[in-house]
Amino acid sequence: MTASIRLTLDQAYHLAQRALRSNGFSAEHADAVAQNVTAGERDGCASHGLYRILGCVHSLRMGKVSADAEPELIDSAPAIMRVNAHGAFSLVAYRRALPAFVDKVKRNGIAALAINHCVHFSALWADIEPLTEQGLVALACTPSHAWVTPAGGNQPLFGTNPIAFGWPRPARPPFVFDMATSAAARGEIELHRRAGKPLPPGWGIDRDGNPSTDAASVLAGAMLTFGGHKGSALAAMVELLAGPLIGDMTSKESLAFDNQTGSSPYGGELIIAMDPQRFLGEQQATYLAHAETLFSDMQQQGARLPGERRFRQRPLSEQHGIELPQALYEEIEALCQ
Amino acid sequence: MTASIRLTLDQAYHLAQRALRSNGFSAEHADAVAQNVTAGERDGCASHGLYRILGCVHSLRMGKVSADAEPELIDSAPAIMRVNAHGAFSLVAYRRALPAFVDKVKRNGIAALAINHCVHFSALWADIEPLTEQGLVALACTPSHAWVTPAGGNQPLFGTNPIAFGWPRPARPPFVFDMATSAAARGEIELHRRAGKPLPPGWGIDRDGNPSTDAASVLAGAMLTFGGHKGSALAAMVELLAGPLIGDMTSKESLAFDNQTGSSPYGGELIIAMDPQRFLGEQQATYLAHAETLFSDMQQQGARLPGERRFRQRPLSEQHGIELPQALYEEIEALCQ
Repeated sequence: MTASIRLTLDQAYHLAQRALRSNGFSAEHADAVAQNVTAGERDGCASHGLYRILGCVHSLRMGKVSADAEPELIDSAPAIMRVNAHGAFSLVAYRRALPAFVDKVKRNGIAALAINHCVHFSALWADIEPLTEQGLVALACTPSHAWVTPAGGNQPLFGTNPIAFGWPRPARPPFVFDMATSAAARGEIELHRRAGKPLPPGWGIDRDGNPSTDAASVLAGAMLTFGGHKGSALAAMVELLAGPLIGDMTSKESLAFDNQTGSSPYGGELIIAMDPQRFLGEQQATYLAHAETLFSDMQQQGARLPGERRFRQRPLSEQHGIELPQALYEEIEALCQ
Repeated sequence: MTASIRLTLDQAYHLAQRALRSNGFSAEHADAVAQNVTAGERDGCASHGLYRILGCVHSLRMGKVSADAEPELIDSAPAIMRVNAHGAFSLVAYRRALPAFVDKVKRNGIAALAINHCVHFSALWADIEPLTEQGLVALACTPSHAWVTPAGGNQPLFGTNPIAFGWPRPARPPFVFDMATSAAARGEIELHRRAGKPLPPGWGIDRDGNPSTDAASVLAGAMLTFGGHKGSALAAMVELLAGPLIGDMTSKESLAFDNQTGSSPYGGELIIAMDPQRFLGEQQATYLAHAETLFSDMQQQGARLPGERRFRQRPLSEQHGIELPQALYEEIEALCQ
């Protein structure tokens, strides 16, 4: 048994916020990050929970993230919004760009938001939900560090390159998925290494390009994409859309910039949102109901909706709080000195 | 050895065109379909080649496609173009909408085109290329008939739901992928059934929801998505984006409409295009060069670029023509009576 401590969401937020403020993050950046990691814990995603505070402070100490940069909004085309994070985490930049971006989506029917020059540690579903809450359909993607080999290759080149998608549901939590295009998350491979457990086949290759189930060999070699050449094509698409298209880094460029400090990826994120109201007009309610039929057809045959588990966990955490491993709690507390 | 006949691309086009015209398709619809299937043969994609003429004529005879409908363009929002195919194949509708759509993309930076109420048999890469030729980045998707079960389910619900993506390359063929979100194409399973060959594992389940490698059992049961729950989430996304979002049918609705006539899917297609010029301005050339670095990094380690094989085949077919199985040639000739 690992000792753990129960915290209300408010306590979790304040623990994270104090640790960030103590290390020099501005009030606004500390607030945005603390809210984000608290939301991760709340939804039962420990991998994007308070544990991330350690990495945030590490990136700051390594000089790889700005503690206080002011985001700069750039209105670059009728349906394109850009926001330059100027080396800070993506979250404040996104928060600041959101109202103008939503306006663009509702005015034009579809619009794109490019977050540039941001350090990225957070889960994309957290960027999708503010859009589904506005009744919008949204897609987001971001490269990371070059850890994943393309199908047919043997060297790391792509990031874990997540793709997230959200669909608004009347009076229900949205349909949201957020998936790495790698076969597994890098964190899961780290966990297998720490536990001395072999990896499932298909997760990675060693330095020589041979399939391997040894976590350390895969971390030194390369991870594989999910779904073979199809997942690999999607990973390449993410590199292109949230890299060169928006004037930002590929995963390889991000890893070079990291310079072996072990900091979070640096680069861009692309978000595309669409307004069903502008596509459907008076028929909106009718066709949103067709989507509900699709969802119930999935559930009736035993298929889970993506995001379901998070949304089930959420009210439980709001009522009962969350459990943090005692060791992690103490590590974060120690950062508050 | 199957007997085959060699045709120039021009001969192939005219064979297809005559068969369509003889059966009542208007000059413009016959031309668009003949060009499309000839391009399939030219690129070495027999599954989207002249063989499709048989299905096109079958759909017409079953009363499931219009031979001559005029597409109707609807300018529904600053960055949304809609075109109602009024029950004809998607191709003429797309061709007619293309100039106004490209204008919208270049004016706004991003725009969406919804093709509605179209019968769809063609490969999406053919819709992507006219956009990459204009220097645009493009995404396309369409549902089909309900043949694929969601991950965790045991009944057909999704279509094979392809996703295609294109990226323009200066002075080179574009980077284009076009992938079904099912583990395999339905046509491949048909081919295994005809040949009496077992399927690879992971392609489908039987009527009772059990994994099966028997082609007939899978055709009567359900196909699986590629990449497990991730491919399944993407398949659901395609249902939503190119179904309810654009006021059109899901794959289940399309199959019900088909009414066991074995006709092509009926519904919508969504295309999203972005203009790198509007994202990057003066930095466009610089960042397109970053994308070229990504491609050469892929190729140097032995990874193929998607679409590579098609673009290698193309000039060969233009020079030497294509080979059609004699039996197929005769079947199409017979349609010309």
